[in-house]
Amino acid sequence: MIHKLTSEQRATQVAKLHGWQAVAGRDAIQRQFRFADFNEAFGFMTRVAIKAQEMDHHPEWFNVYDKVEITLSTHEVDGLSERDIELARFIDSITS
Amino acid sequence: MIHKLTSEQRATQVAKLHGWQAVAGRDAIQRQFRFADFNEAFGFMTRVAIKAQEMDHHPEWFNVYDKVEITLSTHEVDGLSERDIELARFIDSITS
Repeated sequence: MIHKLTSEQRATQVAKLHGWQAVAGRDAIQRQFRFADFNEAFGFMTRVAIKAQEMDHHPEWFNVYDKVEITLSTHEVDGLSERDIELARFIDSITS
Repeated sequence: MIHKLTSEQRATQVAKLHGWQAVAGRDAIQRQFRFADFNEAFGFMTRVAIKAQEMDHHPEWFNVYDKVEITLSTHEVDGLSERDIELARFIDSITS
């Protein structure tokens, strides 16, 4: 069972992440990344993809060359859940 | 040297592709894809990424779960070039 984070949980958990920000008009969080080049950007995306598949929790993401923009939200609860925090923590752990 | 396609070249070449459409307000083409699941979508993206790197010509793309939206344009000519057509042809060749 997936639970939507309460406002307090959301604030506490998101504050512990690195550089994730609320998305205007949506209950979602977003972070932008810039890498050395496309190879590094897509390598990063591949690591996230494998983790996402393992968690059965997938990002919305945009990439162009060395830039990646990731949005996390949980469809099932129409907002943020612990799964978003977990995936964001993993993403933070493989970036600086 | 990369050349911007003329209006005639653009029309002729894009018409031979499968389902690529002009992007409103930009000299670019876009196609949307839907796959069986995330595994298939990201597998497709990985094939395109390898080709893009080989060509040194990279897509702008968005993915969420089984959906992929690809936009092609050539930064250097501020519009469409033969490289976009070549990458679109490759993408068409690995999808139906």
